[in-house]
Amino acid sequence: MAPFTPRRRRDSSHRAILAATRDLVREHGYAALTIEGVAARAGVGKQTIYRWWPSKGAVAIEAFLDEVQTAIEFPDSGDLRRDLAALLASVAALLSDPAWGPPLTALLAETQHDAALREIYQERLFRPIRGIYLRRLAAAREAGQLPADVQDDEVLDCAFGPLWFRALTRPDQMKEDFGRTIARVIFDGLSDRRLTEPAAVAT
Amino acid sequence: MAPFTPRRRRDSSHRAILAATRDLVREHGYAALTIEGVAARAGVGKQTIYRWWPSKGAVAIEAFLDEVQTAIEFPDSGDLRRDLAALLASVAALLSDPAWGPPLTALLAETQHDAALREIYQERLFRPIRGIYLRRLAAAREAGQLPADVQDDEVLDCAFGPLWFRALTRPDQMKEDFGRTIARVIFDGLSDRRLTEPAAVAT
Repeated sequence: MAPFTPRRRRDSSHRAILAATRDLVREHGYAALTIEGVAARAGVGKQTIYRWWPSKGAVAIEAFLDEVQTAIEFPDSGDLRRDLAALLASVAALLSDPAWGPPLTALLAETQHDAALREIYQERLFRPIRGIYLRRLAAAREAGQLPADVQDDEVLDCAFGPLWFRALTRPDQMKEDFGRTIARVIFDGLSDRRLTEPAAVAT
Repeated sequence: MAPFTPRRRRDSSHRAILAATRDLVREHGYAALTIEGVAARAGVGKQTIYRWWPSKGAVAIEAFLDEVQTAIEFPDSGDLRRDLAALLASVAALLSDPAWGPPLTALLAETQHDAALREIYQERLFRPIRGIYLRRLAAAREAGQLPADVQDDEVLDCAFGPLWFRALTRPDQMKEDFGRTIARVIFDGLSDRRLTEPAAVAT
């Protein structure tokens, strides 16, 4: 179980609310999601939802985390390049899924307009996941797999930024394989140094 | 003059509306922008604005384009790496400017919720700019500066994605220098091939 799992409550209403949220987003999209709709589907009162979450975005974040956990796990084979390529392909596949890509990008977009949701998104989703990823990079750096002139946060932005940018601007072009392409670009680089700078390589 | 300049009208009301939009966004942010506010500041009626633009987002796109044109020009020295590093640093500086970063990310975010604005954003901003950038990459490819196994669209997403992702998730960390770091990562790569794969380099 990933450490960014939000604290679970065994309460069946809690589970029913998350399941209802997930189902409604899959069926009708994130824009159509309402607290009223979730309450009706989960068979609970609106106040029960508001006891745990301040907004539909906050419920959605927890429902999504619950569902996407496997897809966003950073493997640890000891080989950073292989592991990051696998993770990026997995996230690309998630974003290319019509059930998940549009709601996940809609949620990120909504954080730009809603400061309270932004804080929840940062606290419950972005920072916990990034924290785990940074620990994986620290191990890779320790093993000599990262260059000294690039920081771990920069590596993560260079790895995940292309996925989110494409999801936001050309979602129809999102393909699992794009994740592997990103890994190839950021690990190998675009400069064909074999052709153009063999001397620099030899030094 | 960049080719993505929207067709200009010499009409002084048109210019006044764009100037008012720009000023209001700088002063109060994009969220507070309203058609009413623009009309009042520009000294025109709301109907004059609606004659040219269907929404506040559409006016903002044209006002922004007008203003940021220099910042988003792709230099052409013949050296793709140098030119792309300069462009990325320039866009990073733009996004780190409190007057421009938040409105530009807010606008991108708004396209996720508003299909009509999304189409205007694509037609007037994203596709024209990308078209120009793709032509610059085609020239670089012709000059042997890009590897065959990465497509031009993938290069652009790997270059600009990290900037927009950081602007959306950690805007306080946006620095001009991050643009140059991205160029270093995507051209040199993270693999220290000098240490780990000298044989592969020599083949």
